[in-house]
Amino acid sequence: MHPSKTLPELRINDERLVADFKELQFIGGTENGGSSRVALSPEDLAARDWFANRIEDAGLELRDDDAGNLSGVYLSQQPHARTLLVGSHLDSVPNGGHYDGVIGVLSALECVRTLREAQVDLPLHVEAINFTDDEGNYQPMFGCRALSGLISPAALSDLEMDNGPFRAAMLRAGMMPSRAHYARRRPQDLAGYLEVHIEQGVRLERAGKPIGVVQGIVGRTNYEFTFIGEAGHSGTTDMYKRRDAMRGAALFIVRAHDLVREKYGDGVFNCGAVEVYPGGFNVIPREARLAIEVRHINEMLLNEMETAIISLARECATSFRLEVMPRLLTHYTAAAMHPQATTAFRAACELLGVKTLDLYSYSGHSAQFLSTITPCGMVFIPSVGGVSHNHNEFSRWEDVVTGANVLLQAILHYALPEESEALKNAPSSHQNSL
Amino acid sequence: MHPSKTLPELRINDERLVADFKELQFIGGTENGGSSRVALSPEDLAARDWFANRIEDAGLELRDDDAGNLSGVYLSQQPHARTLLVGSHLDSVPNGGHYDGVIGVLSALECVRTLREAQVDLPLHVEAINFTDDEGNYQPMFGCRALSGLISPAALSDLEMDNGPFRAAMLRAGMMPSRAHYARRRPQDLAGYLEVHIEQGVRLERAGKPIGVVQGIVGRTNYEFTFIGEAGHSGTTDMYKRRDAMRGAALFIVRAHDLVREKYGDGVFNCGAVEVYPGGFNVIPREARLAIEVRHINEMLLNEMETAIISLARECATSFRLEVMPRLLTHYTAAAMHPQATTAFRAACELLGVKTLDLYSYSGHSAQFLSTITPCGMVFIPSVGGVSHNHNEFSRWEDVVTGANVLLQAILHYALPEESEALKNAPSSHQNSL
Repeated sequence: MHPSKTLPELRINDERLVADFKELQFIGGTENGGSSRVALSPEDLAARDWFANRIEDAGLELRDDDAGNLSGVYLSQQPHARTLLVGSHLDSVPNGGHYDGVIGVLSALECVRTLREAQVDLPLHVEAINFTDDEGNYQPMFGCRALSGLISPAALSDLEMDNGPFRAAMLRAGMMPSRAHYARRRPQDLAGYLEVHIEQGVRLERAGKPIGVVQGIVGRTNYEFTFIGEAGHSGTTDMYKRRDAMRGAALFIVRAHDLVREKYGDGVFNCGAVEVYPGGFNVIPREARLAIEVRHINEMLLNEMETAIISLARECATSFRLEVMPRLLTHYTAAAMHPQATTAFRAACELLGVKTLDLYSYSGHSAQFLSTITPCGMVFIPSVGGVSHNHNEFSRWEDVVTGANVLLQAILHYALPEESEALKNAPSSHQNSL
Repeated sequence: MHPSKTLPELRINDERLVADFKELQFIGGTENGGSSRVALSPEDLAARDWFANRIEDAGLELRDDDAGNLSGVYLSQQPHARTLLVGSHLDSVPNGGHYDGVIGVLSALECVRTLREAQVDLPLHVEAINFTDDEGNYQPMFGCRALSGLISPAALSDLEMDNGPFRAAMLRAGMMPSRAHYARRRPQDLAGYLEVHIEQGVRLERAGKPIGVVQGIVGRTNYEFTFIGEAGHSGTTDMYKRRDAMRGAALFIVRAHDLVREKYGDGVFNCGAVEVYPGGFNVIPREARLAIEVRHINEMLLNEMETAIISLARECATSFRLEVMPRLLTHYTAAAMHPQATTAFRAACELLGVKTLDLYSYSGHSAQFLSTITPCGMVFIPSVGGVSHNHNEFSRWEDVVTGANVLLQAILHYALPEESEALKNAPSSHQNSL
């Protein structure tokens, strides 16, 4: 660190960050200018290699765990230091963009590199981490759930679904599926988790603010609703005796959207996929299977919404003499961010003169699971047009740099809260300047 | 023929018919007791082989054409005899039953076998025919349309749809796709077409009548309706900016059913299949493709219904800022049965003391196309519970036998109308008894 620089003056190296960002674009880059690095694919493994090389180049401690999470650690000199995690994920959805997750990992890497270069003396280890399969190529949020102790030893069995391909992919990547649950960390070893991510929405853009301080992460439940009627010849079956599964399913889709809009203003309902069996122009649908997702930032209201939607499905089914089977697939509890973390982020923004917007995240993030074992906080940077999970995903570079510097200062504030407060009061003369 | 038997006393061999029926159940039989013999599948080809063997066993003339239609002909002794076609199809829908089509082909085979055995002297060739791909695994009613001259030389090109799989299946079955249109028959070579089929409805059952004399066949139009919106992250996209293709499509399905029930009492609407793209719990549907079918016995009202449904689709699309593309796939004109054929069937029923019900067919049948080149007639036998296109499809065996005997006597009446009239007046002393 330049002797003249105080901690509040510390900034990430913009040129190094942009160089990393550009290099990574070549790993899994797609024809249309996007990025496809689904978890444990050859592209994802190449990105992990690249990340490991950057960590070693920077002289950081390379660390990996049994769930394939990969980290670069800037070690504290203190003997019993706890660890502050910072990071996100390098894997993408199929045909995704270059910002989702990537910005979080590269900013985290750049922060620990900057801290190490400046030889900042911190009471915490700071660990830049890349989580495995965040986007759910095999199991969504696998890495952060494993680290949070939320992966059971049976999670990779074939009891509920075919996990063979996942196990094979883990073995190819050098991981032992039966050991994944050993990735669990003890809460007493962790100090917290901080992440910067793209917003994937337009609230920051509309508000003209470069940083969103996340207050909480939406709860989410996925269901498969199967409406069951009776197949038959579409021409000859008596119109009044039909038990058309798709007719009931369509009524449900229409009314569920209306219900959520009318009664749960902040709630989300999505029917993202439909399968009809047997399927044919001239066959009355016997079965309609709907992929249903509901989200709400308030866990209690989420549960209430789910109950209302299941009742509605039964009502729609009954009105066409159908049955309906709602099958719960996944439930991610709504999670509040920790005041300690949001305070650190707000302090960083204040220091940097960056305007903030408090908001909730309507997408799932690692912090949702990590918050069960350690205090978590997140900030969002603006996504142009709110586009995400798409090759047109884009954030302005100045916003990316702002996000990385906010993360850096938030780490410092989190690790040295008292010192930071003192700095704020007397920014020009500080004992930690070198 | 037993010398003691007169033509009006001629009956099919019930035991031989049931033996055939039982043998065929093993070809493409499914676990749930139904039958899956989609056209040109290995199971369908096995059924054709089996049928060809039965034809040869019976000493009939084996005939096939360029569209894969397969026949057993009982040849007339008269040099310029025309051909009376009798038959149906051995192919099934996926996971169908054992009666649809099968009863028609087996009854036709049994009739020509009976005629040949009895050495009945007829002025017409009688041809028991199995039509290719009646159920539309590749192209609905392919065989009878080809025979009717309704398949153009370009019908198997890839101009409008990918016909590669159909061409490959034809080649595997020993057919030349480019020659299919040569299956066309000259109207002057044909005397007519008679078919017995299951009702696939409950009108006969309700009326307690064993034979339905078909007056006409419903007109039918198939459309693919594609609703087009915009994909996006289900959690983060503003609820009021979503353009969810499935939401509009669901509203259309609900309202189209209501429209047809309210305004077109005899009309049928079916949405038998739905595909959603990209498809995923957490992705807003960009596209919803619906397989739509409309039917009406009145061609004018059918056209009116189609127009109303297309308008409705546009209205539903607009209300969610979507576009909709209705693509017409097939249109089968409503067809009236020929008095000559219905008279022959009625005379047969009268002779056999079988009660009849006049009705319209709400399912498409070969006669719909064949009626463009030759007089056609059909009878239905009762379907228990009206169930069809389903493994629970069932008809009582006595009704099957009645149908076959009605067909036999209708053939005789059709081929020898004056003689039959004379017989009716003096049934006990007839010159054609052997």
